[in-house]
Amino acid sequence: MSKAELVILDYWVSPFCLRVKIALNEKGLQYEARPEDLFGGKSELLLKSNPIYQKVPVFLHDGKPLCESTIIVSYIDETWSSPPLLPSCPYGRAQARFWADYIDKKVFDASGNIWRSKGEVPVEAKKEFIKILKQLEEALGDKDYFNGATFGFVDIIAIPLTCWFLAVEKIGGFTVAEECPKISSWTKRCLQRESVAKVVPDPEKVYEFVLMFRKMQGID
Amino acid sequence: MSKAELVILDYWVSPFCLRVKIALNEKGLQYEARPEDLFGGKSELLLKSNPIYQKVPVFLHDGKPLCESTIIVSYIDETWSSPPLLPSCPYGRAQARFWADYIDKKVFDASGNIWRSKGEVPVEAKKEFIKILKQLEEALGDKDYFNGATFGFVDIIAIPLTCWFLAVEKIGGFTVAEECPKISSWTKRCLQRESVAKVVPDPEKVYEFVLMFRKMQGID
Repeated sequence: MSKAELVILDYWVSPFCLRVKIALNEKGLQYEARPEDLFGGKSELLLKSNPIYQKVPVFLHDGKPLCESTIIVSYIDETWSSPPLLPSCPYGRAQARFWADYIDKKVFDASGNIWRSKGEVPVEAKKEFIKILKQLEEALGDKDYFNGATFGFVDIIAIPLTCWFLAVEKIGGFTVAEECPKISSWTKRCLQRESVAKVVPDPEKVYEFVLMFRKMQGID
Repeated sequence: MSKAELVILDYWVSPFCLRVKIALNEKGLQYEARPEDLFGGKSELLLKSNPIYQKVPVFLHDGKPLCESTIIVSYIDETWSSPPLLPSCPYGRAQARFWADYIDKKVFDASGNIWRSKGEVPVEAKKEFIKILKQLEEALGDKDYFNGATFGFVDIIAIPLTCWFLAVEKIGGFTVAEECPKISSWTKRCLQRESVAKVVPDPEKVYEFVLMFRKMQGID
């Protein structure tokens, strides 16, 4: 079998792109992360490959496009089976998909309600964000990773979002470590993995990006 | 193997519950649909089985709860393999999941923006709803079903939503048949299947439900 050509249409700070890169790293696959200029103008390839949402990430497997990060991570897991990211039994897979879906629906929007806020951050926005993390903390329990002893699907979906938490903390005036210590330990544990550490940006850089974004949008 | 005990915590008009019932019908499985009283008070079993969202459907497989209709339909397909609902190749599955996710994100909310509207329905709400259906029409193309010649996953996710379209049409003042004839033919085709016909309610009854709901909510 000739080597597959794997390309990600990428943006460095996007947690959704990071998911795809971590999944490929976990599988030990080589890929090209092709940066998109989201503010200057998206590539023709991006617009053609993801006509519905026109968003990164797009994953191209031998030229065939796939969109939506959670779906891409599932595809990667089904295409390259080792090491498995999703549990082997259908019930375990359904549980993992439930939490991945919960994270997709809740975390980024709730963090945005803090880091995008104009003036003082509403107390409700902070409460909601912490409530969501506490829910995840309950799902994590005393396990090392969401599925137990092994880093897997739900961890890949969740961990990229945490590099935005410093910005959320600085703008929101609280710390995740104090509110949700287990999520904080889990984050550190995940960041020790090479697959994660080599792609997740420095939270200070993400904070600078957020400040730049706030200026661009006229928030500050 | 003793017979599995399959229970759905159900509400007759919920398109999300209908998905689960159609998937089980397609697999030829017997189940008990246990009606929930969503307005009078949800059962302890529902609250305990779906603590995060407290919503129907919950699917109980030998007492083990599963939540979120799209995830439940995946689980059913992975647990009882024949006939398959999702395509056999990973790329086909990713495409099916993309459209299921698109439908989940767009259709019910867009229809609600019409049938819940107070006073005259905003033109933008109608335009958005029709735009979404036209996008689905493009995905359907000239095929009989979303995945080709065989009724499958995306059809199961989409078809239950169509029994609300009469209410949308009456309140919105347009017809899907005129705007999106292919979606209209596909709907008729799906409704000829026994798995669908025996559970999907009469659109007139759904319209009556919507009128009752609007009164309850003080819209009319």
